[in-house]
Amino acid sequence: MADPSTTPPLTRASVLAAHSLIKPYIHETPVLTNTTFDQLASTPRTPEELQGTEWEATERPANPKIRFWFKCENFQRIGAFKARGAFHAVERLKQTEGLEGLKKGGVVTHSSGNHAQALSLAARENGIPAHIVMPTISPPPKIAATKGYGANITFSGSTSTEREAVTREVIEKTGARLVPPYDHPDIILGQGTAALELQRQVAASLSTSGTTTTTNRRRLNAIITPCGGGGLLSGTALACSDLSPSDPSTPGPILVFGAEPSFSGADDGRRGYYSGTRIESVKSLTIADGLRTPLGAYPWSIIYERKLVAGMYSVGEEEIKKALRLVYERMKVVVEPSAVVGLAVALFNEEFRSMVEREGGEEGWDLGVVFSGGNVELAALGRLFGEE
Amino acid sequence: MADPSTTPPLTRASVLAAHSLIKPYIHETPVLTNTTFDQLASTPRTPEELQGTEWEATERPANPKIRFWFKCENFQRIGAFKARGAFHAVERLKQTEGLEGLKKGGVVTHSSGNHAQALSLAARENGIPAHIVMPTISPPPKIAATKGYGANITFSGSTSTEREAVTREVIEKTGARLVPPYDHPDIILGQGTAALELQRQVAASLSTSGTTTTTNRRRLNAIITPCGGGGLLSGTALACSDLSPSDPSTPGPILVFGAEPSFSGADDGRRGYYSGTRIESVKSLTIADGLRTPLGAYPWSIIYERKLVAGMYSVGEEEIKKALRLVYERMKVVVEPSAVVGLAVALFNEEFRSMVEREGGEEGWDLGVVFSGGNVELAALGRLFGEE
Repeated sequence: MADPSTTPPLTRASVLAAHSLIKPYIHETPVLTNTTFDQLASTPRTPEELQGTEWEATERPANPKIRFWFKCENFQRIGAFKARGAFHAVERLKQTEGLEGLKKGGVVTHSSGNHAQALSLAARENGIPAHIVMPTISPPPKIAATKGYGANITFSGSTSTEREAVTREVIEKTGARLVPPYDHPDIILGQGTAALELQRQVAASLSTSGTTTTTNRRRLNAIITPCGGGGLLSGTALACSDLSPSDPSTPGPILVFGAEPSFSGADDGRRGYYSGTRIESVKSLTIADGLRTPLGAYPWSIIYERKLVAGMYSVGEEEIKKALRLVYERMKVVVEPSAVVGLAVALFNEEFRSMVEREGGEEGWDLGVVFSGGNVELAALGRLFGEE
Repeated sequence: MADPSTTPPLTRASVLAAHSLIKPYIHETPVLTNTTFDQLASTPRTPEELQGTEWEATERPANPKIRFWFKCENFQRIGAFKARGAFHAVERLKQTEGLEGLKKGGVVTHSSGNHAQALSLAARENGIPAHIVMPTISPPPKIAATKGYGANITFSGSTSTEREAVTREVIEKTGARLVPPYDHPDIILGQGTAALELQRQVAASLSTSGTTTTTNRRRLNAIITPCGGGGLLSGTALACSDLSPSDPSTPGPILVFGAEPSFSGADDGRRGYYSGTRIESVKSLTIADGLRTPLGAYPWSIIYERKLVAGMYSVGEEEIKKALRLVYERMKVVVEPSAVVGLAVALFNEEFRSMVEREGGEEGWDLGVVFSGGNVELAALGRLFGEE
């Protein structure tokens, strides 16, 4: 991995530069809107719906006005935003180390998820070997998918100590460069490019829709993204920082929010954010399996220390399932459970909804929601929905 | 229902007129492309893959070149192309009968599927009562969905005699106008509008993609749609008939093909087409549950008698499931089993593939595939994929 001391500064300009680097390799994913979801989010929840939740004593459920803009990274290459960070990390390594050296040593990471596939793809397209360290207990379809991208797989035990030991062995043997899944500036800058596209796509759509006037110009007010290790959230925060009000294509400010599952401590980011101390270990089996990781140090510095994220919110497993079902039934797109946690916050978290009501007022908010990925095992999906 | 003798002629011009009428009510659904599917379809199937199929003795599997254009009617209102026909039928009734009379008597149909929801929606948006006759044994979610669109539901037995008797009772009691699901010119003309959009969308995309030259201009060569009652297929055939080679936005000819499940006789359209006699009764429990109906008389007149459809093909249940899984995994869109039968033909039917190889030659074909709908019960999907 490129030495962090030589990486670009963590600014919006660096996200723009990252976007130029990776553009030839990634999809500009579509942005979808949906009136059913807008209506749902803009209707106060009923006392019956709030029964059994932490808000059941609420006297007056929140009544925000929300217009959604869904950034569909489930349609991204390898089916998730992770392609952005991986391609950017590889491009940066090509710049700093040269392609020839990389072709000899290759790149390495430990992951059983979307990052493994993203790095394998980015390596393959550059003719670079990819070494992926995966726990022996990884689901066979994930192993097959990663092999399908041409990666060399090395199995390890499933604790982080075991994984890291095997990764070091691979590095010693091959000279491969480590590309971590989220805790590195190059990864963060790559992930931030999704929010750049979203800003432009919404601005373009609003400027042609005829609903805007010079006196009352609608624009993206905020973006909410899922938060696991924090690469996507902190990259989004950088992409929305230093927005120039004079640039009509990206009028600011755009607030950025993080969304996490609350199940068995997966809301480490939220707890850390409001207590002022980063939580470094998480053990949660939330169905949002991409969000079981603790927040990394670089993301933390952007999200908390630089205060580029305006708030962190969490939702329970039932609310994630409900949002997931709604997306399949009403939007007809395939998303993984992690992808809908931001939507679940906007639909079901009274704290978030009250804040939008207060800040958005009569006019309401245009809210960007990043659907982070669509890699769900169909059998697992079957079990999830088959139960009911 | 408007008396068929007063309906517009079954021509491309009438499909264009239908499109103008329904445009304010329907979505122009997106057209997706996908290189993974193009590669899959453009690779000969292996002897292993052909084992156990009717083509296992094939010496040289077909090697067509196919570029897909997926018309996503799963993103249409009510989640299926049926919205087009229903809105058109209601618009035509408004023209011929007047809105006031319709508001008193309403409209009626017997259906438990997408047509029921489509007609309910079209009626509701015009302030017209909708009466839907459904078998008592209909799945509760379908009943709930149709009620959700504000329809009055009357239950009947499940034979066609019982259904029709109850429908007549409703008509006598309310004066409602019958809007059949497929066997009527107004319905057929409405369904054909999806193919009109597809023609224009592909032409626009190819003319800006820079891949076209004046000497070697790429264009849509063919469209394949699922075929149940035949409304979508015959409407598509009309939309592709009489194409003027001088109109650059719709260069012809565009061949039209129908796709059916072969399971337990659901390929009635194909059998009728090649034997010259319409098959009027079908009893199949294919997983493509939208395609369990026999071909209607009006569709037959277009598909067979006027020869506006160039061929009919069928595929087995396993091939439909395989295509369905691929669409969920690779395209990340939610489709119902019926929707992928055309894709399954292009991927797995050697007869179709040989024909494309022969007709398309070196350059291959740009093939439009209509994804007809996305209304799948998630629990059923769970069982389908959970088994494996």
